[in-house]
Amino acid sequence: IFSLANLSDALAIRSALERRPQRALLVGAGLVNLEMAESLSRRGVAVTMLEKCDHIVPGLDPEMADLVEAELARHGVAVWKGRSVRTFFGNPDGRVQSAWVSGIAEPVAADIVLVDIGVRPETGLARAAGIALGRSGAIAVSERLETSAPSIYAAGNCAETLHLVSNQPVANALGTAANKQGRVAGENLARVPAVFRGVLNTWVVRVFDAAVARTGLTEQEARACGFLPVAAQITAGARARYLGEEPVTLRAIADRASRRLLGVQAVGGGADKRVDVAAVALTAGMKVDEAAQLDLGYAPPYSQVWDPFLVAMNALLRYL
Amino acid sequence: IFSLANLSDALAIRSALERRPQRALLVGAGLVNLEMAESLSRRGVAVTMLEKCDHIVPGLDPEMADLVEAELARHGVAVWKGRSVRTFFGNPDGRVQSAWVSGIAEPVAADIVLVDIGVRPETGLARAAGIALGRSGAIAVSERLETSAPSIYAAGNCAETLHLVSNQPVANALGTAANKQGRVAGENLARVPAVFRGVLNTWVVRVFDAAVARTGLTEQEARACGFLPVAAQITAGARARYLGEEPVTLRAIADRASRRLLGVQAVGGGADKRVDVAAVALTAGMKVDEAAQLDLGYAPPYSQVWDPFLVAMNALLRYL
Repeated sequence: IFSLANLSDALAIRSALERRPQRALLVGAGLVNLEMAESLSRRGVAVTMLEKCDHIVPGLDPEMADLVEAELARHGVAVWKGRSVRTFFGNPDGRVQSAWVSGIAEPVAADIVLVDIGVRPETGLARAAGIALGRSGAIAVSERLETSAPSIYAAGNCAETLHLVSNQPVANALGTAANKQGRVAGENLARVPAVFRGVLNTWVVRVFDAAVARTGLTEQEARACGFLPVAAQITAGARARYLGEEPVTLRAIADRASRRLLGVQAVGGGADKRVDVAAVALTAGMKVDEAAQLDLGYAPPYSQVWDPFLVAMNALLRYL
Repeated sequence: IFSLANLSDALAIRSALERRPQRALLVGAGLVNLEMAESLSRRGVAVTMLEKCDHIVPGLDPEMADLVEAELARHGVAVWKGRSVRTFFGNPDGRVQSAWVSGIAEPVAADIVLVDIGVRPETGLARAAGIALGRSGAIAVSERLETSAPSIYAAGNCAETLHLVSNQPVANALGTAANKQGRVAGENLARVPAVFRGVLNTWVVRVFDAAVARTGLTEQEARACGFLPVAAQITAGARARYLGEEPVTLRAIADRASRRLLGVQAVGGGADKRVDVAAVALTAGMKVDEAAQLDLGYAPPYSQVWDPFLVAMNALLRYL
């Protein structure tokens, strides 16, 4: 039974794989377990993935998560939603043998178990030092990443940051932000004034043959933040059809009141590109009207004359 | 001897290829001839490309054009710069046989010649109708694409448009803009008010194994438009190294006075993605400071923790 937080976890998993496990149970369907599902399947391990919620991949709307689930299924990964582990059973050597899964009568056999059930900011040291935490549970910091204790800075998964669309403090546990924050904190420590503006929770992951990516807010998140979200979902070719079909599905969310783009999710060919394009539009607070006419590059291997991103924006305009 | 403007040109070239030409002479090193150089080489035709100017690919700075030239050379295409055709010689059937090229004593043998020396807006009908042309030589239009003659609209290569970075009227001869303009003109004709905001001259082309793309202004164009351009050129991995090297070179231009991003050129893996990202930043009038912290997606197959676009922006900051 492994968690997946750092290099020593990875090394331990690698040596466990030398015992050639037959059946893996992946608890939680987040980014890390999505990558593990692919890696283990490619090594010939039968993979079952459990997700407590009613759809996999937190951070996607259910309509998009379903596409990821289909990609997993197409590659033989069993996905069980709305289920969690009650207890694990071991063999005499102390290794895991099976799990009792909610709603399943028989124990589920498993030679290896990977647990990816979310990230909590490590704030023990900060709390012990009397440093203030923010609403998200991570360490509260200024724009310059200074904590409530003067001259003490926080960066990375432990530090709170601003979501650039919702304007809410969030605990963003992604390496991209951690890297930028490390730089900003370092500059300030070296007395070069620098600010960290915030995040969009942009991520991308490869799930077998599909790129899966998101940025900004999902429809569900937008509603929770008090927006009046409108969603449009389209499927279009990521390149010219005569170069081989490479469909990509985009789900775009906008605010009915302000016409601002709020977020984009993508599954398929070139999902990474369309989500990066959306990330820039979100940072600029762009309205859908402007985003629908962006002058993006076209050549047959890379796009269509109307890039899928523009198709999605034009679809949104019909609902706004 | 063929030009490359429309479908009948393409069909004529295709039937000429059935005569199995051995040597092609490509006059002009623009987008169309770059694509033709690849297509003809793949069919086993020996390709020589002539360019009147001192670097190929108008729309790239010389430093980036050199990378494209190297890619062509690597695939056996001969590139002659600063040269033009004085005259062509035919054989008794009336087909081209060779060309007299400036600065070359011997005639250059060629079974097929393709001429791609730029696009001029077709304004004959407009001029005959007394419709005003703009400074760029294309038909002057309002934001709604109405010409100087009420209720007569112009869209596509014949219509002038605004460059969103320079704010100058330009004749943009790209299908992406033409498509959007056609829609805007159509909506206005159908009495649905719509505006076309302008272009960035974004394009992308595949040259053998490299994507080549640009958006906004090059350093040379920026200087001609009265900016004080600063340029940074970097090479970085477009994805994780262990998935196979895929370097991309980015050249980014910013304005020293306003710190605004002015343009980006890219050659290599994922050039299309980084240039599309830049196109959104340019449309938003983003400063380099903000562009350097964009929350772009990272996973090993798609990027690095610091995306090459961010590396380029951080390089620019050092000069600003």
